[in-house]
Amino acid sequence: MPAPSYSLGYLAKYVNGTLVGSKDYQVTGLATLQSATNDKLTFLTNKKYKQKLKHTRAGCVLLESSDAEFFAGNKILSENPYLSYARLTELFLPTIETKPCIHPSALVDNRASVGEGVDIAANVVVEADCVIGNNVRIYPGCYIGEGVTIGSGTIIYANVSVYHHVTIGDRCIIHSGSVLGSDGFGFAPMPERSWKKIHQLGSVEIGHAVEVGACTTIDRGALENTVIGDGVKIDNHVQIAHNVQIGENTAIAAAVAIAGSAEIGKRCTIAGAVGIVGHITIVDDVHITAMTCVTKSISKAGSYSSGVPMNTTEQWRKNAARFNQLNRLAKQLLTNN
Amino acid sequence: MPAPSYSLGYLAKYVNGTLVGSKDYQVTGLATLQSATNDKLTFLTNKKYKQKLKHTRAGCVLLESSDAEFFAGNKILSENPYLSYARLTELFLPTIETKPCIHPSALVDNRASVGEGVDIAANVVVEADCVIGNNVRIYPGCYIGEGVTIGSGTIIYANVSVYHHVTIGDRCIIHSGSVLGSDGFGFAPMPERSWKKIHQLGSVEIGHAVEVGACTTIDRGALENTVIGDGVKIDNHVQIAHNVQIGENTAIAAAVAIAGSAEIGKRCTIAGAVGIVGHITIVDDVHITAMTCVTKSISKAGSYSSGVPMNTTEQWRKNAARFNQLNRLAKQLLTNN
Amino acid sequence: MPAPSYSLGYLAKYVNGTLVGSKDYQVTGLATLQSATNDKLTFLTNKKYKQKLKHTRAGCVLLESSDAEFFAGNKILSENPYLSYARLTELFLPTIETKPCIHPSALVDNRASVGEGVDIAANVVVEADCVIGNNVRIYPGCYIGEGVTIGSGTIIYANVSVYHHVTIGDRCIIHSGSVLGSDGFGFAPMPERSWKKIHQLGSVEIGHAVEVGACTTIDRGALENTVIGDGVKIDNHVQIAHNVQIGENTAIAAAVAIAGSAEIGKRCTIAGAVGIVGHITIVDDVHITAMTCVTKSISKAGSYSSGVPMNTTEQWRKNAARFNQLNRLAKQLLTNN
Repeated sequence: MPAPSYSLGYLAKYVNGTLVGSKDYQVTGLATLQSATNDKLTFLTNKKYKQKLKHTRAGCVLLESSDAEFFAGNKILSENPYLSYARLTELFLPTIETKPCIHPSALVDNRASVGEGVDIAANVVVEADCVIGNNVRIYPGCYIGEGVTIGSGTIIYANVSVYHHVTIGDRCIIHSGSVLGSDGFGFAPMPERSWKKIHQLGSVEIGHAVEVGACTTIDRGALENTVIGDGVKIDNHVQIAHNVQIGENTAIAAAVAIAGSAEIGKRCTIAGAVGIVGHITIVDDVHITAMTCVTKSISKAGSYSSGVPMNTTEQWRKNAARFNQLNRLAKQLLTNN
Repeated sequence: MPAPSYSLGYLAKYVNGTLVGSKDYQVTGLATLQSATNDKLTFLTNKKYKQKLKHTRAGCVLLESSDAEFFAGNKILSENPYLSYARLTELFLPTIETKPCIHPSALVDNRASVGEGVDIAANVVVEADCVIGNNVRIYPGCYIGEGVTIGSGTIIYANVSVYHHVTIGDRCIIHSGSVLGSDGFGFAPMPERSWKKIHQLGSVEIGHAVEVGACTTIDRGALENTVIGDGVKIDNHVQIAHNVQIGENTAIAAAVAIAGSAEIGKRCTIAGAVGIVGHITIVDDVHITAMTCVTKSISKAGSYSSGVPMNTTEQWRKNAARFNQLNRLAKQLLTNN
Repeated sequence: MPAPSYSLGYLAKYVNGTLVGSKDYQVTGLATLQSATNDKLTFLTNKKYKQKLKHTRAGCVLLESSDAEFFAGNKILSENPYLSYARLTELFLPTIETKPCIHPSALVDNRASVGEGVDIAANVVVEADCVIGNNVRIYPGCYIGEGVTIGSGTIIYANVSVYHHVTIGDRCIIHSGSVLGSDGFGFAPMPERSWKKIHQLGSVEIGHAVEVGACTTIDRGALENTVIGDGVKIDNHVQIAHNVQIGENTAIAAAVAIAGSAEIGKRCTIAGAVGIVGHITIVDDVHITAMTCVTKSISKAGSYSSGVPMNTTEQWRKNAARFNQLNRLAKQLLTNN
């Protein structure tokens, strides 16, 4: 597989940018400011790295026109270099040869409907009444339960498990090891203190252009569905419990756990390892910083946090010990006044 | 698959409840107070939603007799509506046609013993010396290592991995992506600071009626077994390290991590994203709130917590900065007096 | 499979220890001080259990010579009993019969190169241009993408997914359900607030003698590679984001989440459920205690912590409420003086 090669003229046009330099100059890849060689294109997306422009050996730099003066070589001026860089990444994906087909070892039920240009790899099982849209790709070892719907252009990587009746929109990407539609965690206590299972009769609805990271789980609803809006991006190891609702274009970083029936707005950004308790509502445009524990509803857009700062263990121990005296100390202070 | 339909007379008898209304009235499903239509049964399990009874269009409501006056239509009176609702969910599970069989692509070793009515799906591998009880269902892509025992009526969903010699009791449910019996994390430091693996010679023993969520891991013990008691319910993304012991009917929510050799009592409820350090003991009937870090043994039943409350990031920063001065501030306060 | 049996003379020589007792005495396994019977060998690796030596029924105890006086029976004296115990565990692993072979149901591309003594189990898919070293074992249901390299002696347990072009060193162990090389979480915001995917053009490089736990994910880099150094040990449910670099012999416990481009030094030990934000650097020989949130670089070796201590929920609530007044209280205290 020879590396792809593009002229700067082609790349400038591809991102609607303005080329300053040689339109026939060829580059064979993208690279960081530090590592780029003269056959690579690099980019300045964070002003604080402006000084590195002096030292880069890149064949071309993608940057804002206001930064153009800082680099003397070939450059592509763009209003939004970060977005332009994102666009260029699709040109340099490795080309993996595939001819869409249903592998002979795949087991696709007679009652499943399969669109055109679909690639179903080895050892995939597609159960009855599934509807698989055009140009869907399903990698080896996936299990697609009864009555699942998968929209056009969706890619499901290896060893994903999709339980019955889940619906997945168009142009989604589901990474390996993820589980969609497992039972919500619902049990009624019995008089003798064992637990009676509440069978989960709802399902999972995933919108269009959703990305689900590796080893992420989205549970089916108890009676109604768990709903993931269009354009939502979910990282690895995320837990989304039954009946959670996530608004459009919200992004959720790795290891976040969201408890049952939480409703999260649109365009939220939830940093890594955040926990969100159940039955609360978070409005649109909320940002939550890493490892915050969200224990109540958030009714106003903005940034929210919890936790205490890291310290050496020695110093931390002294301060942490005082935490358990905080109420007493505060009372004493307020009494003194 | 036509929706199942049941008369209220049948449903009242099914939950040992008292019907007030038409015994021949038919319902085709369960629904929430808000979404129920007149062909659905709903329920009041939380008194604070009592006002919603006025507006529900449900064909029947399941409730306590003390709340009967708040709803004029058909109703089933029950001593424990939540438990009755749990019982009814099993009537409305989608009926997925299966005839128990060993799929031709499944690889079941000659030295494995397989009970009656067992369903082993496509691409399942069952190694030598396994004992599979009656009516067990194993979904596609599961791996069942050498000498594993699986009790009667247990269901193992797709793409579960069970390492050698693990034992799983009767009527368990293991969700997709889970891993049972992987090596505990044990290494001895070598003089040059690399790590020597401590092979994990114990196994995992899972009792009866245990549910294990998706992408949950239960490591095998170092010398003795990791033990999960009867009736334990474990949610998704839970980590149970080597030699942990969990008492009967304890429930563990998602993203909990329990370190090695921790002993947890019976009937505990551990909320999401809790961390429990190793080699500690927690007595019976302990509740731990979300995201608590349990760093020492708990010798008395009750509820335990750690963490600090969420705030706007702006306010939080000011308070968090003071945390690192807490010991100093406390000393100053105490000196002042 | 009869239990293996070894003479104490053989075992003492195996660990370079000094036997005090009968060299022909046979033991058939390892056990803890409490559970050992007279056909088992036990060990004292933690001085605080010294009193238990009086009561153990073990046939032999492995201990430091300075503790020899506390046990009257057969004993093996060792400079490092814990390391000696680790060495002995390999003698008592269950022998699972396998003859290295490529199972007929495995799909190994013609353009893959496979070494000698390789065991590729049922339903494994190995794509084009893979290079599989000698004596590699790949368990059922694994997916090995295009151009993956796996070093000699590496073991990959069931249902692991390895994306294209990942490289794995010699003598690694990858546990079930893990995902190596999934896409880093990279998106550029579009003007209308949806997200444009940044295709991840880097890969993952895993050194020699690395262990990766169950359900752990290591994302591929954006442009350059995510790099895991030789001898690194990673537990279950760990998230390693794109372009993270982890130095040699660092050990990472379960449920740790490391955000993008973090650089972690050599010989660090990171306890369970720690979160590490992106784009920071941690030097060599740092220890981080459980559930700490690492929000900035660490430039000095030592132990670091965050969090607040657990308390009864009742007491905790009172103290936690004061946390949100901390800045105000501190100001008041400082004003008083």
